[in-house]
Amino acid sequence: MNTPSENDALVVFTPSGKRGHFPLGTPLLDCARRLGVDIDSVCGGRGICGRCKVSHPKGHFDKFAITSQPENLTPLSENENRYDAKKGLAPDHRLSCSAKLQGDVVIDVPPESQVHRQLVRKRAEAREIKIDPAIHLYFLSVTEPDMHDPRGDFERLQAALAEQWELTEISAIDLPVLGQLQKALRAGQWQVTVAVDHDTTIMAIWPGFHDAIYGIAIDVGSTTVAAHLCDLATGEVLASEGVMNPQIRFGEDLMSRVSYIMMNPGGDQEMTTVIRGALDNLASGLSKSAGIPLSSILSLTLVGNPVMHHLLLGIDPIELGGAPFALSSGSAQSIWARDLELNRLIPNGRVYILPCIAGHVGADAAAVVLSEGPHLRDEISLICDVGTNAEIILGNNRRLLAASSPTGPAFEGAQISCGQRAAPGAIERVRIDPQTLEPRFKIIGSDLWSDEDGFSQVALETGITGICGSGVIEVIAEMFLSGLLLSDGTINGQKSSLTERIQAEGRTFSYLLHSGDVTITVTQNDIRAIQLAKAALYAGARLLMDHMEIERVDRIVLAGAFGSHIDVKYAMVLGMIPDCDLSKVSSAGNAAGTGARIALLNKQSRSEIETIVHGITKIETAVEPRFQEHFVEAMAFPHKTQPYPELSKVVALPETTQVIMSGTDKPKRRRRWKS
Amino acid sequence: MNTPSENDALVVFTPSGKRGHFPLGTPLLDCARRLGVDIDSVCGGRGICGRCKVSHPKGHFDKFAITSQPENLTPLSENENRYDAKKGLAPDHRLSCSAKLQGDVVIDVPPESQVHRQLVRKRAEAREIKIDPAIHLYFLSVTEPDMHDPRGDFERLQAALAEQWELTEISAIDLPVLGQLQKALRAGQWQVTVAVDHDTTIMAIWPGFHDAIYGIAIDVGSTTVAAHLCDLATGEVLASEGVMNPQIRFGEDLMSRVSYIMMNPGGDQEMTTVIRGALDNLASGLSKSAGIPLSSILSLTLVGNPVMHHLLLGIDPIELGGAPFALSSGSAQSIWARDLELNRLIPNGRVYILPCIAGHVGADAAAVVLSEGPHLRDEISLICDVGTNAEIILGNNRRLLAASSPTGPAFEGAQISCGQRAAPGAIERVRIDPQTLEPRFKIIGSDLWSDEDGFSQVALETGITGICGSGVIEVIAEMFLSGLLLSDGTINGQKSSLTERIQAEGRTFSYLLHSGDVTITVTQNDIRAIQLAKAALYAGARLLMDHMEIERVDRIVLAGAFGSHIDVKYAMVLGMIPDCDLSKVSSAGNAAGTGARIALLNKQSRSEIETIVHGITKIETAVEPRFQEHFVEAMAFPHKTQPYPELSKVVALPETTQVIMSGTDKPKRRRRWKS
Repeated sequence: MNTPSENDALVVFTPSGKRGHFPLGTPLLDCARRLGVDIDSVCGGRGICGRCKVSHPKGHFDKFAITSQPENLTPLSENENRYDAKKGLAPDHRLSCSAKLQGDVVIDVPPESQVHRQLVRKRAEAREIKIDPAIHLYFLSVTEPDMHDPRGDFERLQAALAEQWELTEISAIDLPVLGQLQKALRAGQWQVTVAVDHDTTIMAIWPGFHDAIYGIAIDVGSTTVAAHLCDLATGEVLASEGVMNPQIRFGEDLMSRVSYIMMNPGGDQEMTTVIRGALDNLASGLSKSAGIPLSSILSLTLVGNPVMHHLLLGIDPIELGGAPFALSSGSAQSIWARDLELNRLIPNGRVYILPCIAGHVGADAAAVVLSEGPHLRDEISLICDVGTNAEIILGNNRRLLAASSPTGPAFEGAQISCGQRAAPGAIERVRIDPQTLEPRFKIIGSDLWSDEDGFSQVALETGITGICGSGVIEVIAEMFLSGLLLSDGTINGQKSSLTERIQAEGRTFSYLLHSGDVTITVTQNDIRAIQLAKAALYAGARLLMDHMEIERVDRIVLAGAFGSHIDVKYAMVLGMIPDCDLSKVSSAGNAAGTGARIALLNKQSRSEIETIVHGITKIETAVEPRFQEHFVEAMAFPHKTQPYPELSKVVALPETTQVIMSGTDKPKRRRRWKS
Repeated sequence: MNTPSENDALVVFTPSGKRGHFPLGTPLLDCARRLGVDIDSVCGGRGICGRCKVSHPKGHFDKFAITSQPENLTPLSENENRYDAKKGLAPDHRLSCSAKLQGDVVIDVPPESQVHRQLVRKRAEAREIKIDPAIHLYFLSVTEPDMHDPRGDFERLQAALAEQWELTEISAIDLPVLGQLQKALRAGQWQVTVAVDHDTTIMAIWPGFHDAIYGIAIDVGSTTVAAHLCDLATGEVLASEGVMNPQIRFGEDLMSRVSYIMMNPGGDQEMTTVIRGALDNLASGLSKSAGIPLSSILSLTLVGNPVMHHLLLGIDPIELGGAPFALSSGSAQSIWARDLELNRLIPNGRVYILPCIAGHVGADAAAVVLSEGPHLRDEISLICDVGTNAEIILGNNRRLLAASSPTGPAFEGAQISCGQRAAPGAIERVRIDPQTLEPRFKIIGSDLWSDEDGFSQVALETGITGICGSGVIEVIAEMFLSGLLLSDGTINGQKSSLTERIQAEGRTFSYLLHSGDVTITVTQNDIRAIQLAKAALYAGARLLMDHMEIERVDRIVLAGAFGSHIDVKYAMVLGMIPDCDLSKVSSAGNAAGTGARIALLNKQSRSEIETIVHGITKIETAVEPRFQEHFVEAMAFPHKTQPYPELSKVVALPETTQVIMSGTDKPKRRRRWKS
């Protein structure tokens, strides 16, 4: 630290506590920089951007032995008065580039003035996002050209970035920006703001001072495409939008889309065109709803499963449709928006696509890892992102394993007799009274249980239309808990004597959940479909546990739309996931989308996930004989042989019956892909 | 070197003379690699490409104490027989990857089998081109995908390049190539040839073995665009083509094109579109005339003056139309062909544009430097590329200076009463008999002098239509040498008593060169126009000599179309250039085009010229008062005050008369640009 002299004053920055002596007259921003105190600035100390705002509390601070007087800083400068008139400056607040030391002071740096501020996330266990995007804005003054100085405008801009911002590695300016450079410099009277990617490439320019740039994080699912528009400086989500994936017209699920391409040469290009068009529309819609210009959207991060990943990049995905499921490339991609023909975005927008883990474990799974951070913990996480395939990640900071398991679409309400997508009118919660065996339920769009006052009015208005994925899980789990279902998955026909809701259907039985305009029953086939799906999920997780040589996991995260809607307790009652302390089982929501947002807002996270993905051990369930064994054993509720001690603490599980499967009932392992 | 053992044999490679002992059975290619002998190979020793052909001379070699027997190499292998049947193998020639040591041998490596062969140029003093392009071909085998190996095809290709070619820095594959990768690998049964740019980026792929790739070097002049298609492996020019610059419809010269843009907003985009279209057509035409596919043209180098440079890149050049003549950027550019909308080329073709030196000294001048190599010599070169502006380079390996001087279009036959472009029928050579004062001349399209038998027939067929730039230079120089012209440029009216060819025209006189269908005279105004042009050229050169603090240059190179047609002796008689040993004055032809070709064929030359250009001192003639002084003094023939001792050795110069200029005759310095 400095050796104080008579003309020095002491400045203490809070909350960091960093302190030092500086000559009277030193601007606070300079003191901060020399002490390594993190204060933002876009305009480089010209009193324009207001990013360097600090507060100057008055009074005596025992802790620092400082009496911080108003006169210990220079009075409000012209710049500060101008800023105050234009944008407002709170009492006691100063622009640290303008306020200069006149005596000892305590200076508080509010979170919004820090460059690397943290973005607080709602879920307690979620990792925080440190805001440090790949692209930064710099405001600067460029020397005017002169007959004696033959350097080009770009070369003088390069020199100014080196002098004013210590950016000495600026090697390139994107061609479209080079075309705008001369007019921008002259319109801004030799003051411009540039956006610089990775401290090397100039990718946008504005005359004068420009304050804000934005990025979009997109999770391209086979069914829905979800996008978030973020402020790159604050990380704030300004607008979110979701649309159906327009590829649905070529096939509901991935398998049918790949089949379409096999049957229709050129079909891959059609799908590439429509998905890129959808992204273009999303960008345009987000810019409108947030009221910001498209030209300020400079960054895009994309995640998706391998088929979506390939189609986005313009790669024919048919190799992913059959063994050995070879990716064209799993590496992360950094490309220009124009190379993806995203024509509404500026052509020099940068697109980052996260790496794929394997032929069936895509960039969306990588994004889930980034969001949930299993590699940052000692405890062992099991992360399941459940869709038509379940992507399963297991491990901790020492080792990570990944696999994909063919759960099929049952969890999404498909292959279920009264199943439907999650939409108003769908039954999503179910309770069955163990005594009366009578059900009560909730539908999407209402907070009332079906036995509460007012429900019939709601039902009249909304209609009771079917049962969604989480509703299927709950009704089957409740049937099991109330003894309507045997451990092997057979509906207990003996109960038909106790309730009319158990009805014979040929040689099997069904359970009547609701009768009305639409009759909603749970059939033996429905239960078999869920059994197949949950056994596949469990067997995948268990296979990874075998490879990891562990018998239990410390933590389970259910990701994806399905995972965020189901009650984790019922997932465990069914035996979808291994036993675990229920307080350590959580839903992560759209973790893939969150991972995309992290990659958007923090550039280090990109190399982090690339390194992590490279180190993940990929397990191919199709070539592991043990997978088949685990699969068969996992057909029972909750499991044929595995005990569930943690679950038993909170739920009274029925006595486990010995499961005997008949030859016809014994499920066959389905192929992951029709070929 | 190796320590020989009993099972070793001695191999001596000629012409390098490198030698070493290797175990019997070692392939010759391996011996060569270990000794650092430069032998090419695209197929990596698979006996396919034939690039590694060597000859095995038989007999006793005293010099090496070796008796080289036929049986000292293994017999022709299956690969060699196959190659012989397909492409032919000369007697005593072997594929060095197949032929293995069986005893001591002398092996001759022919120039065409060397990787870094030299391209011999016709002009004795021209620098040789070492063939080492930025893009190389590699043939390789890629591991097939496997359920147990989750790596993508690109990642396995990366690994193969590292293993088989020691290319460990392959970091990227261009997006369009990524889209072709999977089909190419499968069509080639896991053998492919890839083109790699700068050892880092895969930019093209072919199933199986692919033998040849090409590049085009283009000099984009304001009037003509000249292109050469070259084989990137041999450097051979396979086809050349020149077209008029289609921008001519917007204005004959640069000034009028810039004016057009000033008057017509968007005019720059029109000009960008038409010049890019012309390049596209050139590429397509060259590919047809050479009979090679457009898809094998992977590289393009471009040079041009600053206005052409900006328009090619899509940059509005109007800043170049007025002081301070600021470039948007002078840096070299490496971009994709698709970014220049060169749609006939493969989208992943690479374009390299040489750096500009200053606002009036373009990438064409940089290319001239690369071609003529003043920076590689101790002696001081003066290089003049004469067009509407003359670009002048002066210096040696210690220091280089550059300037642009406003010569105007007189040298190109414009502003001359009977002037015309160089075309059949134009007078290009003139001699005047000092006694009779009668002229004789040659026209373009005939080798006969006008006083030779058969000329009248030629004249009848071709017509005598005017006088081109080089003809103007000669007739004026001959008029001066024969006393028809005074040193101050005045036509000597006193001679009208001796010849009827001197005719009075108001207060001045003219010289009748030819009368026929078209009457061709040289007027006093013609001479004034040439005086202005030559004085500007001389003054520019002299200004650089002042800055260099030298009184004479060692060597003069006249570049460009004009420079290659004039007789350097007459250029010196007129005083266009300073005095110099005439044997050290040469014409370099299209040196800018040659520089583009060097940058195409040798990647090191790119960083070489970037470094050199960065170090060139740029002199702005417009702000140098001395330029005006030199200009006035240089109006006289050959010069008012500078002696021409070297020239006097070969030409009898008339006694230098004291030049007195009248006020009206005194030339005014014109502005470089009309604005």
